[in-house]
Amino acid sequence: MSWYWEDMEVGMSDRFGPIHVEREEVLAFARRYDPQPFHLDDEAAARTHFGRLAASGWHTCSMMMAAMVERWQEVPGWQEQSLGAMGIDELRWRRPVFPGDTLRGTSELIAKVETRSRREMGILKWHTRLFNQDDAEVLSLISIVMQRRRPAGA
Amino acid sequence: MSWYWEDMEVGMSDRFGPIHVEREEVLAFARRYDPQPFHLDDEAAARTHFGRLAASGWHTCSMMMAAMVERWQEVPGWQEQSLGAMGIDELRWRRPVFPGDTLRGTSELIAKVETRSRREMGILKWHTRLFNQDDAEVLSLISIVMQRRRPAGA
Repeated sequence: MSWYWEDMEVGMSDRFGPIHVEREEVLAFARRYDPQPFHLDDEAAARTHFGRLAASGWHTCSMMMAAMVERWQEVPGWQEQSLGAMGIDELRWRRPVFPGDTLRGTSELIAKVETRSRREMGILKWHTRLFNQDDAEVLSLISIVMQRRRPAGA
Repeated sequence: MSWYWEDMEVGMSDRFGPIHVEREEVLAFARRYDPQPFHLDDEAAARTHFGRLAASGWHTCSMMMAAMVERWQEVPGWQEQSLGAMGIDELRWRRPVFPGDTLRGTSELIAKVETRSRREMGILKWHTRLFNQDDAEVLSLISIVMQRRRPAGA
């Protein structure tokens, strides 16, 4: 199976995870990148809408990325054709992510876009969602990914 | 100065940074959260459109967050009224971020939205941009932030 842009079909989907959310890592990430009280301190978090200590939203995105890369490495040929993401649309942190949670993810290809400016690649739009152990959605986003096009003659 | 939703005016802006992008931190973040070759290995990165080792896009977002929280902590009363972000729209990684770069950021309030469901808060939409030392834009996003409304009688 090759994974050029031409090989991808809207509607195809994949799964990734599990992601185990570790308290020490939640705290370490927050200390360096998002030192707001509800990500650092149990008592401060209890006084907010989070209810208890919650992971930084950027940490959740980063844990998602790690699990996605791990999944891609299981798929022969995938990484060679992926040229990375240009951006993200409609990212929503729908529910808090807590230490002790176990998350799993799904991705569905929702659109293919041809580009005029760079003929060697096309755009893929993936709808990616993370769910917790109660099957509640915690994160949703649309990633805009550059994928290599099939070279002439390949 | 109080920072309730009612006190915010569309068009107000702020600055944050500088952010010094350190090679060892770029590598450490990538190892844990985004172990793709162009974030981990100089030679592999040289063979891609990045040209050389580049920071994970999620790392750039996380460094931005750290610098924003640091800035907020300088503004008396700010953090008390901010209830965190619901999500992000139109995130674009416009150029690679390289070890050794120095970034600075700007945020402009582009919209205020009233909500029907939760009367104690309103929505603020901020357009945040990061620039490198050559004044080239590397990141742009619109954050959707919940801000406390002025309580009756306050």
